[in-house]
Amino acid sequence: MSTAILKASPIHFGPFPVTTQVFHLTRYSYALVNLKPILPGHVLISPRRVVPRVADLTPTETSDLFLTVRRVARMVERVYGASSLNIAIQDGVDAGQSVPHVHAHVIPRRARDLEARGGVDAVYELLEGEEGDLNRILEGKLEKGENGERRRKFPKVDDEDRHPRSLEEMEAEARFLMGEMAKEKEE
Amino acid sequence: MSTAILKASPIHFGPFPVTTQVFHLTRYSYALVNLKPILPGHVLISPRRVVPRVADLTPTETSDLFLTVRRVARMVERVYGASSLNIAIQDGVDAGQSVPHVHAHVIPRRARDLEARGGVDAVYELLEGEEGDLNRILEGKLEKGENGERRRKFPKVDDEDRHPRSLEEMEAEARFLMGEMAKEKEE
Repeated sequence: MSTAILKASPIHFGPFPVTTQVFHLTRYSYALVNLKPILPGHVLISPRRVVPRVADLTPTETSDLFLTVRRVARMVERVYGASSLNIAIQDGVDAGQSVPHVHAHVIPRRARDLEARGGVDAVYELLEGEEGDLNRILEGKLEKGENGERRRKFPKVDDEDRHPRSLEEMEAEARFLMGEMAKEKEE
Repeated sequence: MSTAILKASPIHFGPFPVTTQVFHLTRYSYALVNLKPILPGHVLISPRRVVPRVADLTPTETSDLFLTVRRVARMVERVYGASSLNIAIQDGVDAGQSVPHVHAHVIPRRARDLEARGGVDAVYELLEGEEGDLNRILEGKLEKGENGERRRKFPKVDDEDRHPRSLEEMEAEARFLMGEMAKEKEE
């Protein structure tokens, strides 16, 4: 999948254009690098059609989305030297969804990777923080590097090193992961 | 899907027989009621083939699993009067997986449903607790109603009312949900 093809058809994450941060594209789905990855290789998979809920997807879109999750997950686990993965969807506002566009978080995990930030479970608190920030940062309400005022429930979680990344950094990672996807077997 | 058909081919969740707790069966997947639901309608979807990782699934099994997640999710959201859903897979030990058999948690959510137990995010801490207990309870290491000795990181989370349910209670819910699945449209 060349960058040229990607640029020919702009990709949106909710209302936000994210074309240059996309590293994998199928007929119905795409994979996107993250503004504030919880751990290296934390990426998002979305349907190309902007719909808020999993129930809004057609069966074809649903199959394609999760086949894409599976292939991308296998790639990031390999590339980032992980041994496990968290796969999570906040399907609707009352489940913690921020951007109203279906997105599956894929987070590569390694033994004791979050030991200093609260243990295995801390991934979910961090996920909640990330979802909370995502919409506000994309809307430009948070400046780069600013921590914002969002409530922090679990003081054990150290979020200091999780500033939003620059567009350049995200685009470089997208180009790298695009190359890595090309090495994955088709199925 | 009749109970007779289900009983004709025993269903396993990891090493554990769970046939009578299954309420929906497709060619490659099944849906199971939960021993300690975090919230009403919290159920599990697994592939019929016992494999630990999402990457172990064939593309056909992957599609079927998530089409089943989508249909079951729509059903529990309706039946339990929810407005959102958490969908989560701990894919591997280092992501918090307990029973080494792929399983997607589907948890119906409503506004402020976990307000008294820590807020929207508390679902994940509870999930972690549930995963931690699941294997031990199924292995018979915890008696019904016993709290066990597992570490509790977040004292805000009230777990007192989350005793493992009786087999009778789970089977009654499975029969009820089997009837509700029959009301869902095919796609």
